[in-house]
Amino acid sequence: MRFGVVARRDREAALKLAYRVYDFLKVSGYDVVVDVDTFKNLPEFDEGDVVPLEEFDVDFIIAIGGDGTILRIEHKTKKDLPILGVNMGTLGFLTEVEPHETFFALSRLLEGEYWIDERMKLRTYLNGENSVPDALNEDAILTGIPGKIIHLKYYVDGGLADEIRSDGLIVSTPTGSTGYALSVGGPFVDPRLELFVIAPINPIALGSRPMVVPSYSEIELVALPPERELILTIDGQFYTRISPDTEIKIKKSPRKARFVRFSCEIYPKYPFRIKKRF
Amino acid sequence: MRFGVVARRDREAALKLAYRVYDFLKVSGYDVVVDVDTFKNLPEFDEGDVVPLEEFDVDFIIAIGGDGTILRIEHKTKKDLPILGVNMGTLGFLTEVEPHETFFALSRLLEGEYWIDERMKLRTYLNGENSVPDALNEDAILTGIPGKIIHLKYYVDGGLADEIRSDGLIVSTPTGSTGYALSVGGPFVDPRLELFVIAPINPIALGSRPMVVPSYSEIELVALPPERELILTIDGQFYTRISPDTEIKIKKSPRKARFVRFSCEIYPKYPFRIKKRF
Amino acid sequence: MRFGVVARRDREAALKLAYRVYDFLKVSGYDVVVDVDTFKNLPEFDEGDVVPLEEFDVDFIIAIGGDGTILRIEHKTKKDLPILGVNMGTLGFLTEVEPHETFFALSRLLEGEYWIDERMKLRTYLNGENSVPDALNEDAILTGIPGKIIHLKYYVDGGLADEIRSDGLIVSTPTGSTGYALSVGGPFVDPRLELFVIAPINPIALGSRPMVVPSYSEIELVALPPERELILTIDGQFYTRISPDTEIKIKKSPRKARFVRFSCEIYPKYPFRIKKRF
Amino acid sequence: MRFGVVARRDREAALKLAYRVYDFLKVSGYDVVVDVDTFKNLPEFDEGDVVPLEEFDVDFIIAIGGDGTILRIEHKTKKDLPILGVNMGTLGFLTEVEPHETFFALSRLLEGEYWIDERMKLRTYLNGENSVPDALNEDAILTGIPGKIIHLKYYVDGGLADEIRSDGLIVSTPTGSTGYALSVGGPFVDPRLELFVIAPINPIALGSRPMVVPSYSEIELVALPPERELILTIDGQFYTRISPDTEIKIKKSPRKARFVRFSCEIYPKYPFRIKKRF
Repeated sequence: MRFGVVARRDREAALKLAYRVYDFLKVSGYDVVVDVDTFKNLPEFDEGDVVPLEEFDVDFIIAIGGDGTILRIEHKTKKDLPILGVNMGTLGFLTEVEPHETFFALSRLLEGEYWIDERMKLRTYLNGENSVPDALNEDAILTGIPGKIIHLKYYVDGGLADEIRSDGLIVSTPTGSTGYALSVGGPFVDPRLELFVIAPINPIALGSRPMVVPSYSEIELVALPPERELILTIDGQFYTRISPDTEIKIKKSPRKARFVRFSCEIYPKYPFRIKKRF
Repeated sequence: MRFGVVARRDREAALKLAYRVYDFLKVSGYDVVVDVDTFKNLPEFDEGDVVPLEEFDVDFIIAIGGDGTILRIEHKTKKDLPILGVNMGTLGFLTEVEPHETFFALSRLLEGEYWIDERMKLRTYLNGENSVPDALNEDAILTGIPGKIIHLKYYVDGGLADEIRSDGLIVSTPTGSTGYALSVGGPFVDPRLELFVIAPINPIALGSRPMVVPSYSEIELVALPPERELILTIDGQFYTRISPDTEIKIKKSPRKARFVRFSCEIYPKYPFRIKKRF
Repeated sequence: MRFGVVARRDREAALKLAYRVYDFLKVSGYDVVVDVDTFKNLPEFDEGDVVPLEEFDVDFIIAIGGDGTILRIEHKTKKDLPILGVNMGTLGFLTEVEPHETFFALSRLLEGEYWIDERMKLRTYLNGENSVPDALNEDAILTGIPGKIIHLKYYVDGGLADEIRSDGLIVSTPTGSTGYALSVGGPFVDPRLELFVIAPINPIALGSRPMVVPSYSEIELVALPPERELILTIDGQFYTRISPDTEIKIKKSPRKARFVRFSCEIYPKYPFRIKKRF
Repeated sequence: MRFGVVARRDREAALKLAYRVYDFLKVSGYDVVVDVDTFKNLPEFDEGDVVPLEEFDVDFIIAIGGDGTILRIEHKTKKDLPILGVNMGTLGFLTEVEPHETFFALSRLLEGEYWIDERMKLRTYLNGENSVPDALNEDAILTGIPGKIIHLKYYVDGGLADEIRSDGLIVSTPTGSTGYALSVGGPFVDPRLELFVIAPINPIALGSRPMVVPSYSEIELVALPPERELILTIDGQFYTRISPDTEIKIKKSPRKARFVRFSCEIYPKYPFRIKKRF
C-alpha cells in the first residue's frame, strides 16, 4: 500500500503531526510520499519522497489540516484518491478524526475497517471548455467590482430559472451546502444526496430564492447588460476573472471526492457543526 | 375510458365548467361520475352518476379549481388516479391548464398525447399507526396554543437532527416546497426530485435551519417538556390534535400523486409562480 | 423605603433566594411585601406581608426569575415600579444581575448607586377600548386555527403598510426585538431607541418584510375574508381570542417599564445573548 | 430664485426633458444653471449657464433621472440644496414626481406649495479623517477579494457589537434601508426616523443579525487577521480601496439631504416599491 501525506502549511502542529504519520508509515514498511508544499515548510522529510500533489498516485492520502487543505488536494490531484482527513482546522466538515485519534485511525485503515464516502463534484465549462478545477463545495460567480451588482440569467436544462440583479450566484454541491451557500440562505443538504443548490447572493428581488435541482441537470449562466467583468471562484481556492460574454455551464463532474470514514454518522454531526459556525 | 369530474365548491364558474366537461364527455360516449360535494353545489348532474370521492374508480379525474381542490381529491380517493387540473384557483402550482384550454386539453387527453407526472407523498405514523391521510405537500406539526412555543427533538434515520423551541416543524415534499415550507425559509425544490425538506417554524435558535434529506429517510419527532398539545395539519386540509407523548414518524408513502401533463416545462413556470405569491 | 419581592414560582432555588432577600431587607429595617403567588409556593413568608401584585405600591421590586417573571409583574402592577431583576431564567434579557450578585446589588441599590432604564410599552385598543395589558415585548396577532393563514391589512398613521396572508403579525418594542420578532426575521433594536418593529409571521408574499416605524405612529389592523377568529397574545403571557371584525389599534403606551441598572452596557451584552438563544 | 438642472447622462429622454425644464425656467425669468456632465451630453444649453455640480449655489435643483442621479448630486454639491427629483429611473425611492407631472410640479414649487423632507446622512472617518463623501444610503465595507471573507469587529459607542467573518458589513441610513441593506436581510425603516441599520453581508455565523442603533451612536470597525485589503463603497457611487489597518468610524453627518415633496405619503408608497424591486 502506498500513502501520501499532506499538511496545512501555516500551522506547525499540523506539519509535525504529518511528519510523525510519515515516519510511522515508513517504519511500518509502507511507501510514503509527501507533497512539495508540505516539504517546503518542514524540510525533515526525506527529499526522495517529495512529489508534487499533481503527480500523487497512492492508495490513500493522509491530510492533516482543515477543509482548506482537503480542497487544495482535490483541486490538484489527478485521480480520485481516498483521503483520510485529520482535523487541524476550525470546523472540519470534511475531516474524519481529531489529532489525538490519528494513529488509532491509521490502524483501522491498515486493517481495512473503514468505508469510502463518495461525494459528487461540479464541472465547469467556460465557452464550452473545461479549463478550471472541479468544485467539491461550490462555484461562486461574483461581481468583479465589489458593491456593483451584476445582472444574470440562469437556466436549468434550457429553461429560464431566474433573472437576477445581485452580488452573484452560487452553485453548490451537498458537500458545499454547509459553506458559502448556507451563508446566503441555502438549506443544509444531507451528504447522501446528489443534487445542486443554486443560490443567488443578495438579490435585489426578494422573490429570488435558493433552488434545489437534480444532479443530472445542466445549469447555464448568461450575463446581461450592464456587462461587468465577473469573477469565478471555485471552493474559495481557485479564482479567475472572466469576461461578461463568457457562457458558463455547470454539470455534475465524472470525478468524485472520496473520503475514508469510520462511522456513518450524519446526525447530529453536521447540524451540530452548522450551529458552531462562527 | 371512465372519467370523474370534481369542482371547487365555492366558485360558480368552476361548477359550470365542470358541468360542461361532464356533458361533453357523456355526449362523447364516456362513462362519467361526479363527486357528491360537487353535485350538492350544482344539482344539474344526473343523480345516477354521483359517487363519493372515496369510491372513485376511474381512468382520469378532471379537477376544476385550485390546488385546494386537488389536495382534497388526493386525501379522499383510495387509488392513485391521474388528475387533469384546470386552474380556477389563485396560483395553480398543481393544475395544468387554464379554463379556456379545457376542451383542447380534453382532446389531447383522449388522443393519448400526454404524460403522467408522478409525485411522491408522505406517510405519517402516530404511535406506529397510519390513520391520517398521506401528504402531497407537507405535514406541519404545530403548537396547540398559538403563541406558545413547543420544544421538539427530531431525528433522521435515528440520528438527532435538531432540538428546537419553535412554533412548529414542517416536513415537506418537493411538491410542497412552493407552499408553507417556502414561507418559513425553505428552498424551492425541482419537482423531478424525491426528497424531504425539514423546516423549523420560527425557531428561537438562529442556527436551526431548513434541511434537505433523502426520501428513503425515516423522520421521527418527539415532544419535550413543557409538553403542550400539538396540532398536526396535512396539506392545510386535514387537521388533528395530538397528545404531546405521541411518537410521530414520517416516511415516503408507497402511494403517488399522478398528474396529466402536456408539457415538461418546469422553468420558468415554477420560479415565476413563486414570484407571484401574494 | 418599601420593597416588593416576587419569585419565579416553578423553581425552588428562586423561591429560596426570594426568602433570603425578603429576610435581609426586613432585618435591615425596611418594609417588604411579597406577592400572593410567591407566597403560595413558599409559605415561610410572614402572611401579614403578602399582597397581590395588583396592589403593590413600593419603591422597588426585587424580581427573582427570568424574563417571564418580569413580564408577569409588568402585566399585573398598576404603577411603573422600578424592578431589579435577578436572573434565574435562561437568557435574562431583562434581568440585571446573576444570583450570586444579589446582595451586592442590593447594597448598591440601598446606597443609591444605580440608574433607571425606562422602556416604552405598547397600548392596544380593541374596537377603541383598552381592556388588555400593555406590552413590554410585543403584541402578536395570530391565526386562531394553527396552520390556516389569516388575511390582514395593516396601516401606519392611516396609510396602508401591507396586505398579508400569513400566520400572523407581530408588533414589537425595542425590548421585544430580541424575542418573538427576532425569530420571524426582525432586527435587533438598541434598547435606547423608541420605535416599533412590525413583522409579518411567515407571509406568503416574499416581498412582505419587517418594518421599523416611529413610536409616535398609530398602527391599525383589519382582518379580511376569509374571516377567521384571531388570537391576540401579549408578551406571551396574556392571551385572548378576538372576532375577525375587531378593529385593532396599537400605540405607544403612556406607561413605562422601569429597570434598576448598575451598568450602561448594551454591547456586547445584548448581541451576545442573541447568539446564545437556543 | 435660482435653479440648477441636472439630468441622467445615459438617457436621451431625460436630457431632453432637462432642456425643456431649463428653457421654461429661463423664459419665466429665473436664473438657471446646468451641470457640466449634463451639458456634455446635450450641448444645446447656453454655455454661459454651465457650472460644475461642486459649485452649484441655487435655491432648488431639478434632478431628472433615478436614484443614481440624486446620489451623484448629493456626493458632489457642497451645500444642502433642496432637490426636486423627476423619476426617469427604475424604482425612484428618492424622486418625487413622474415625467408627465414635471411642469405641474414646477408650478407648485414656484407657488410655494411644497415641504422639505430632510434626511440624515452618514459621515465616515478613515483614521480620524473625513476625506470621503457623506452617505445618503449606506457605507458598505467589503472584502477586497470577492469570494474571500473578511474578519471584522464592530463597536457601537465603544462596546463590541459583533465579531464577524463575512463578505462585508453595511451601515445604512433609513433612506438606504430600501437599498443594499434590504438585500442582505435588513428591515424597511420609516424615513421619518433617524437611526442606523448595521447589517453583516453573508456572515458565517448564523447568529449575526441586522441591528438598529441610535443616530447619535458612533460606529467603529476594525479588521482582524487574516488582514485583507478592504473596499469602502458609499451609496454605490464612491469607491475606494483601504488598507486593513485603517480605523473606520461612522457617525451621523452634520449635513442633510433635502427633498422637495408635495405629499407626506409614506404608506403604501414605500412598501409598494419594495415589492416591485426586481
